[in-house]
Amino acid sequence: MTTVGELGETALIERIVERVRRASPLQTMGGRVITAIGDDAAAWRVAGVQAATTDTMVEGVHFRTSTASWADVGWKVWVSNVSDIAAMGGSPFAGLVTLGLPADLDVSNVDALYDGVLEACAVYGTELMGGDIVGSPVPFVTIAMTGVCSATPLSRSAARPGDALAVTGPLGGSRGGLLLLESGAELDTPARQALALAHRRPAARTDAGVVLRRVGVRCAMDLSDGLAADLPKLTKASGVAARVEIEHVPVADALRSEFRPDALRMALGGGEDYELLFTGPSDLVQAAVSEVPGSAVIGEITEGPVGRISFVAGRGEPVSIEVEGWEHLR
Amino acid sequence: MTTVGELGETALIERIVERVRRASPLQTMGGRVITAIGDDAAAWRVAGVQAATTDTMVEGVHFRTSTASWADVGWKVWVSNVSDIAAMGGSPFAGLVTLGLPADLDVSNVDALYDGVLEACAVYGTELMGGDIVGSPVPFVTIAMTGVCSATPLSRSAARPGDALAVTGPLGGSRGGLLLLESGAELDTPARQALALAHRRPAARTDAGVVLRRVGVRCAMDLSDGLAADLPKLTKASGVAARVEIEHVPVADALRSEFRPDALRMALGGGEDYELLFTGPSDLVQAAVSEVPGSAVIGEITEGPVGRISFVAGRGEPVSIEVEGWEHLR
Repeated sequence: MTTVGELGETALIERIVERVRRASPLQTMGGRVITAIGDDAAAWRVAGVQAATTDTMVEGVHFRTSTASWADVGWKVWVSNVSDIAAMGGSPFAGLVTLGLPADLDVSNVDALYDGVLEACAVYGTELMGGDIVGSPVPFVTIAMTGVCSATPLSRSAARPGDALAVTGPLGGSRGGLLLLESGAELDTPARQALALAHRRPAARTDAGVVLRRVGVRCAMDLSDGLAADLPKLTKASGVAARVEIEHVPVADALRSEFRPDALRMALGGGEDYELLFTGPSDLVQAAVSEVPGSAVIGEITEGPVGRISFVAGRGEPVSIEVEGWEHLR
Repeated sequence: MTTVGELGETALIERIVERVRRASPLQTMGGRVITAIGDDAAAWRVAGVQAATTDTMVEGVHFRTSTASWADVGWKVWVSNVSDIAAMGGSPFAGLVTLGLPADLDVSNVDALYDGVLEACAVYGTELMGGDIVGSPVPFVTIAMTGVCSATPLSRSAARPGDALAVTGPLGGSRGGLLLLESGAELDTPARQALALAHRRPAARTDAGVVLRRVGVRCAMDLSDGLAADLPKLTKASGVAARVEIEHVPVADALRSEFRPDALRMALGGGEDYELLFTGPSDLVQAAVSEVPGSAVIGEITEGPVGRISFVAGRGEPVSIEVEGWEHLR
């Protein structure tokens, strides 16, 4: 075992650069690259509308190495950024990776982290174009990503009363996987394996984002903190309220079979599914739903009180549901 | 006192958004903004060549609150990113701020940090376009910045044997200021005040970067880790060696008066000055030096051994100098 402190910054960066070049030998960035990894900044040709986002995961806060491999962490931080670009209806392009590393961390963990990032790069047609490595008592990974989008990107502030409210796929799988991994349960059934995979290797819905934009939907956001925590952000940004018909919320099949009585609550509260939440006139939303398998209309946007979310059951009677959304600072 | 944990993520973000809008009410980003702070990603119109960089500071590693205010930290991280864009000969445009915050941190510190960022935004004509806030046991700040540059950005890999080697201004001021602040010395002379300011509020040389590009210089990098640590990066990237005439290295006047016997060593080893190091044919470098007050030719690029730096005194005799450059992972 070699620690990052023993290897030192210069050798570690050389090691990473070689790894990135081997995985992505041409560093083409669509033929648009001018300066990639290794200089003061990256540079590339672009025309149109550029989008940029950033997401971070801190060890002990957003991940634990007992339930996620370093490759999983690299994958997930990259994908969470891709998801933000997808939520704008855009195409992710390239990202910068910042690592905060304790000196006593084994270098093989850094290798694995980059392997996860590079896997995600390949799957989403994106490039790693540089970054920064710093010492830190607690490991963290920050990715900043750029992409291209239209001059009218999807926005979380475009919901209007009367809009249908929909999601692009089943929810709660990541939370179910996390609980299984934390419990140390054997992953001995397809359902358990599916949940663990949903937690370790979530997918970003770039495909769905493109459909939403094409059919004319204007309002979307990605579900990173959970429906119960994220929907209030959308309604507040739009100055509206929402009604959610809980029986229509799609719940991952594997979640139902493994966590039957709690599955719905976990689907409403669980984060890191990275499905898109979207709203629009009913005909547009239906058009999108018909093109995105697994998606479903789950309710309606209503007038205020601004930000209020009403959960209702079969015949419209209000239900009170205790859910925990992700709160970053508690 | 209110802690960030008591305030919570949603209220903290609302507080920050309001602060940013008050400081920068139009969020114009040069009239090019489409989506600014508050959505899944920022979006803006662009044409030409885009540059992107990222830099991080971690408490206890890159700063201590005993020697830097939170506003100083915000300023410095922003400026270190501006400096990277300047080192490409580019114009910084806008950035994303990621904060890692312990729940027990006083909210007023976050306010102060943004004040420092917003001061730097105003000075460098840049915009804060979004970011991310996460819980972290150790406070850290990561900024990712974009800018525009030419299709032939300055590069640290463009040095050629025979090039003159120069810097855009005096070195060591930041190190001198740090030592004074750490020692608790009274800042009771103009020299001491100048050094403390050099450490707390360094300037990025966007002005000099533009001159370098205009006169035709092609090779540059910024001095963030110190000449002795950064020059080997430039020579390795270019496949060359370098000779530094130590008597020509510009040393901050205040550093000479406060730290006379150690001033040169501190100028060679001290980081965070954010001057630009550049090389090129002698006539071009002289043209740049004549336009950038405080700049100086300090040596020459030579053939290999690749990466080797020779320090020489008055008549060319080699000297051995013990300097410490910044090493991120020890």
